[in-house]
Amino acid sequence: MSTAPMTREQAIDELVWANRILVNENVLDGFGHVSVRDPERADRFLIARSIAPALVTAADVLGCDLDGTVHDAQERRTYMERFIHSEIYRARPDVLAVVHSHSPALIPFGVTGARLRPICHMSSFLGSLTPVFEIRLSGGESTDMLVRNAALGRALADTLGPHPVALMRGHGGVAVGVSLPQAVFRAIYTESNARLQAQAMALGAVEYLSAGESGAATETNNGQLDRPWQLWKQRLVEAGRAP
Amino acid sequence: MSTAPMTREQAIDELVWANRILVNENVLDGFGHVSVRDPERADRFLIARSIAPALVTAADVLGCDLDGTVHDAQERRTYMERFIHSEIYRARPDVLAVVHSHSPALIPFGVTGARLRPICHMSSFLGSLTPVFEIRLSGGESTDMLVRNAALGRALADTLGPHPVALMRGHGGVAVGVSLPQAVFRAIYTESNARLQAQAMALGAVEYLSAGESGAATETNNGQLDRPWQLWKQRLVEAGRAP
Amino acid sequence: MSTAPMTREQAIDELVWANRILVNENVLDGFGHVSVRDPERADRFLIARSIAPALVTAADVLGCDLDGTVHDAQERRTYMERFIHSEIYRARPDVLAVVHSHSPALIPFGVTGARLRPICHMSSFLGSLTPVFEIRLSGGESTDMLVRNAALGRALADTLGPHPVALMRGHGGVAVGVSLPQAVFRAIYTESNARLQAQAMALGAVEYLSAGESGAATETNNGQLDRPWQLWKQRLVEAGRAP
Amino acid sequence: MSTAPMTREQAIDELVWANRILVNENVLDGFGHVSVRDPERADRFLIARSIAPALVTAADVLGCDLDGTVHDAQERRTYMERFIHSEIYRARPDVLAVVHSHSPALIPFGVTGARLRPICHMSSFLGSLTPVFEIRLSGGESTDMLVRNAALGRALADTLGPHPVALMRGHGGVAVGVSLPQAVFRAIYTESNARLQAQAMALGAVEYLSAGESGAATETNNGQLDRPWQLWKQRLVEAGRAP
Repeated sequence: MSTAPMTREQAIDELVWANRILVNENVLDGFGHVSVRDPERADRFLIARSIAPALVTAADVLGCDLDGTVHDAQERRTYMERFIHSEIYRARPDVLAVVHSHSPALIPFGVTGARLRPICHMSSFLGSLTPVFEIRLSGGESTDMLVRNAALGRALADTLGPHPVALMRGHGGVAVGVSLPQAVFRAIYTESNARLQAQAMALGAVEYLSAGESGAATETNNGQLDRPWQLWKQRLVEAGRAP
Repeated sequence: MSTAPMTREQAIDELVWANRILVNENVLDGFGHVSVRDPERADRFLIARSIAPALVTAADVLGCDLDGTVHDAQERRTYMERFIHSEIYRARPDVLAVVHSHSPALIPFGVTGARLRPICHMSSFLGSLTPVFEIRLSGGESTDMLVRNAALGRALADTLGPHPVALMRGHGGVAVGVSLPQAVFRAIYTESNARLQAQAMALGAVEYLSAGESGAATETNNGQLDRPWQLWKQRLVEAGRAP
Repeated sequence: MSTAPMTREQAIDELVWANRILVNENVLDGFGHVSVRDPERADRFLIARSIAPALVTAADVLGCDLDGTVHDAQERRTYMERFIHSEIYRARPDVLAVVHSHSPALIPFGVTGARLRPICHMSSFLGSLTPVFEIRLSGGESTDMLVRNAALGRALADTLGPHPVALMRGHGGVAVGVSLPQAVFRAIYTESNARLQAQAMALGAVEYLSAGESGAATETNNGQLDRPWQLWKQRLVEAGRAP
Repeated sequence: MSTAPMTREQAIDELVWANRILVNENVLDGFGHVSVRDPERADRFLIARSIAPALVTAADVLGCDLDGTVHDAQERRTYMERFIHSEIYRARPDVLAVVHSHSPALIPFGVTGARLRPICHMSSFLGSLTPVFEIRLSGGESTDMLVRNAALGRALADTLGPHPVALMRGHGGVAVGVSLPQAVFRAIYTESNARLQAQAMALGAVEYLSAGESGAATETNNGQLDRPWQLWKQRLVEAGRAP
């Protein structure tokens, strides 16, 4: 199982794959972004400049510090919402990768009272509580919904707390992990869980994974992250979309 | 961000891309059409001759005036429903591009009391009211549902009013913009909003964007229309469907 | 607009395209079949030998009479359910093409009290009544659900009556037309109508097309069948699945 | 119609196709597995080493006995959940092939009181009862949901009983058959049935196949398994994913 890559170059390579996998698996579209903590200095993270994730190559990756300041020899810009990443990395030393998406099945759960819960073992990491970020509490009634400064980033990181996933009302969500394969796995299976949970709720009362089941299944899955990661890479190759 | 193109030739080029993008993103199928106001004379618009949007090339584009009269050296015909375009361009000097589609997720909202509202920031342009055009009010009980003359076109433009989008009962909808990328963006994200809103309504009461959030998010999105536009073009290239 | 082809050869060519279009547009899968009345003798129809529709070539087409007897120099067999076709051609001299499918969105409407009705102008041909064939009435409680003899075929043709479409409980449906493009158009848009109608019913009370609207829209659409037919052919070419 | 293959080599070839078909038809993703009883010794079955099903080639297939012990010259490992297969083969001498999947539409039926029943003739094999495996009854409240030992495998085989399909709560399901084409057919059409049944239940009370219809249709379908099998292979070839 791949964990934090050894070198910055390896991290950048994995980040490019992560961008393209998330598009190919329908978690990202023209928007959203994924980052990885710089393996050579923990106070920075690597993220693409402000382009559509499907188009990211290694040359598009730049460094950003935990204040959201870009460090790039070519003076390029990254995404306005880089504070999602910077503040989560600051608040969560355990987190080495962050995905922010507009993953479609998450939206309905972010705008209703329905709470996301683990409907099967693949999404056991969700545990018994997935928090929902309400930007009105920190940003007021008339934001443009974007986490465009450090204060909003901190509020999102507070909502996320120790969880692997948080939804964002009227916007999407974040998934974090100790590696890019884990954060990507969580982003993909959160989307899948939301879709299946909505279907199940239409059929009747739902029996979710127990806390014990969630914990045990997550430990097992964490040992198997390489299998889907290789498959998702293979699908990109087949689709002619490999970096 | 691209605004109204400089020359007629550039507008035609963008119009061909718009046709193919809207098919590739599942807004148009064998029917529906998109137009752009002629940048060289505001009393005409450019639209394809009457063929399936997926097949449109620059050679298929012709000019039409605001009375719906085609001006074409080859004397070709365009779509019967050109009055959707002519009357919206007449009523709305601010509009430089119009999409008419049978976008599938819009149909259920056009035939029920459920009103389309912005469920996330990407579709914030919807604002608090999306009107529904009822052709029976101006055309009577037994039309063929088509906006096939200037009077029906005017009635549709009246229903649209100052809004970016109107639904058409039992038919589809229109999306307008100050440029083709903006009208296309609105058409694609209106479809997405309808699909997600229906899912959310099945889960419980829905918290929509506030008026303040809608306004602010729309202003932000308007500054970012080029990113998805480039992505949608790239997807066409990948699919071997570029013009 | 193409009507009944001139020669048997042209009819066979169109039949091969129809088979592949219906697979490509998700109406047929490994099962289901489409036929055309032999333009050179009205008491026979042309249909593929018993193979998956996606694989049909001109060499696979054979003739069958209205008793369901195959006339083929190579003595090949066709589908067990050829009686769907033979009895509809016998009962309906106006019908020149028949599609039988397991089109997925039809199944829920065939097994519940919900009745299929035209939700938009593209499926206006459905009119105010789409009958449902209940095989138990003529075949008893323990059939294998297949229309495997002339008596069951007659019962299905009786249920169809003068309508363009009938559903078959727990099985699928049939769509008929005065040409292959019309029967294919009806099969594809019946599937689309069922999918959209189910979504609309979940939102609230549905306003369907009035009888007058259905009639007028159908007349208009009948004059435009060539446009989607050419598009569906083009999609097959793009997908590398043209005959 | 293909039944149990003659030689081990032929069985391995069919197993590789089965793996790839099940991925291509959206029954398997990065996880899940399919096996076939060794035609040369009934106390062993053939299954891939522990890799994603889409990637399986003949060289990846190894033998496993009914205690779950792998017999492989290269000493490779297979899936942790091989006990699903070993215990079903032990309990059911009639079973020659087993599919275990996380087939998405099954999940909602496994976690609610809604019971899967045959909604159309293609899935008639479901009969009047599809059991649901509750791992808590034999494994307790805190398993990782996996059938990772012989005791859990036996409990699953007990739940399956004489049925063709069993669901697994919060996990997926199993489908068995007298051949790989039959087990694959059942896995694919169980997924289809679940999707359509959920849609039908949203429309109203559902009329399922009667016991007599289920039995008769299954007998008919069992004589036609080769047609979809050839089609599914053809789709793999078209997609460039043939072994």
